Amino acid sequence: MDKTEKVPIIRIFERGKKDDLDVVVKELPLTIILNNRELVTLLCSPVDLEYLVAGVLASEGLIESKDEIRQITVDDEAGVAHVETREDKKMAGGQLFKPLVASGGGKGASSYSVSEAEGEQWVASQAIISAYEVSALVSDFLYRSSIYQATHGVHSAALCHNKGILVFHDDIGRHNAIDKVFGQCLLDDISLDDRIIITSGRISSEILLKVAKRKIPILISKAAPTNLGVRLANNLGVTIIRFIREEGINVYSHEWRVVAGDR
Amino acid sequence: MDKTEKVPIIRIFERGKKDDLDVVVKELPLTIILNNRELVTLLCSPVDLEYLVAGVLASEGLIESKDEIRQITVDDEAGVAHVETREDKKMAGGQLFKPLVASGGGKGASSYSVSEAEGEQWVASQAIISAYEVSALVSDFLYRSSIYQATHGVHSAALCHNKGILVFHDDIGRHNAIDKVFGQCLLDDISLDDRIIITSGRISSEILLKVAKRKIPILISKAAPTNLGVRLANNLGVTIIRFIREEGINVYSHEWRVVAGDR
Repeated sequence: MDKTEKVPIIRIFERGKKDDLDVVVKELPLTIILNNRELVTLLCSPVDLEYLVAGVLASEGLIESKDEIRQITVDDEAGVAHVETREDKKMAGGQLFKPLVASGGGKGASSYSVSEAEGEQWVASQAIISAYEVSALVSDFLYRSSIYQATHGVHSAALCHNKGILVFHDDIGRHNAIDKVFGQCLLDDISLDDRIIITSGRISSEILLKVAKRKIPILISKAAPTNLGVRLANNLGVTIIRFIREEGINVYSHEWRVVAGDR
Repeated sequence: MDKTEKVPIIRIFERGKKDDLDVVVKELPLTIILNNRELVTLLCSPVDLEYLVAGVLASEGLIESKDEIRQITVDDEAGVAHVETREDKKMAGGQLFKPLVASGGGKGASSYSVSEAEGEQWVASQAIISAYEVSALVSDFLYRSSIYQATHGVHSAALCHNKGILVFHDDIGRHNAIDKVFGQCLLDDISLDDRIIITSGRISSEILLKVAKRKIPILISKAAPTNLGVRLANNLGVTIIRFIREEGINVYSHEWRVVAGDR
């Protein structure tokens, strides 16, 4: 299915109107049905949906390895994905996909961050990256986001090693783009050890936790992190890098992983 | 509470590093407790939280008028909002805040849009706007987004009449920013009749439905709509306008509401 669609529009200038066509990004509601039970409907870009489904299930803790998946069947016209797993894990209290619903009632900012952090393990990777490598990766990343350039409506995410991009996806949702990357790694047996994630979106606490869960040591964005994203990155051992073409590189946490200049 | 926080960073230049401070946007997990029942935890900017809470409850159909709210108490340090309503409406099947979970199982793109559209009423407003007014409103809107300019990490939303902005909010979430606007209108008795909404974010199906639900006739963004946003706008009687400084104005639906030049 195409990622974009042409729609008729009216362009309005100084003193007139004109019929025209514009390219807009497609938005597909995709309902995931896990072991015959309806799980959630995501709004997503209608490509690479097997990867999206696998990534979402893994992000939500419903699968841990490819072996647990018996079958994924996607009907992108109907907007339905059926997943069968070998073991039918119960969702914890039906709270899946409610954003960050605290389990104990009345939890606030600090207990949220601490409890989430305690649930995650430290990212121990000793990977390092040079400023030059960051710059080269981001240039390649931006170049690949051609659909973004066409419609300015999607986010991109990539898994990289120091010398290049290994996996690249885009989607109307910044979470979806990252889930597609991790879903492909899961299904295609691509190692995440000592790897780098680049995202076009803001580094919020949710994005940081999604990446830390996979033990990714380095997270790069052109957009700013939030204060909570920075706090969790410090607590979990993740290096957050913001790339700003004019100003250079800002490192928000665990800066020992970033080497000035080239290596 | 401040919207931003200074964090220590390392700036990396051509051949060196330097300690510095950067301003990042704050992200607060806010748990909404409705009639002593934990509803959801939102990630939001820690300002105007009463408006956010009221707007979210109204968007989700849990309240319809201010009279239904007995009390909203927000503790922004703890990240908890307690809401008491006069009548304790049950959530439909506990599906609140799951994104677009279809009720009948296995619903796809077309049934989603049709069924959602049938549930909403047609936006009948005969309001019109001139290209000049769009341009002036967007200029003011962009100027007010000063926090965006400082940290590039938040979305903004505004309620306007043709000659100016009436209500303006920003938040790290584009849904939250719009919910704050509608929440303020609800709590402060600000009419929505024949009004205009400007959002900094993409016009997706969810945003379109949120706005159509309030019978807003005109929705403006600098960002592109999705194909589903455009389809729903056509079906529900909402005019979508994209403002592009260099190219003028694109109108995606119900263009009869937009007059070229000035009025």
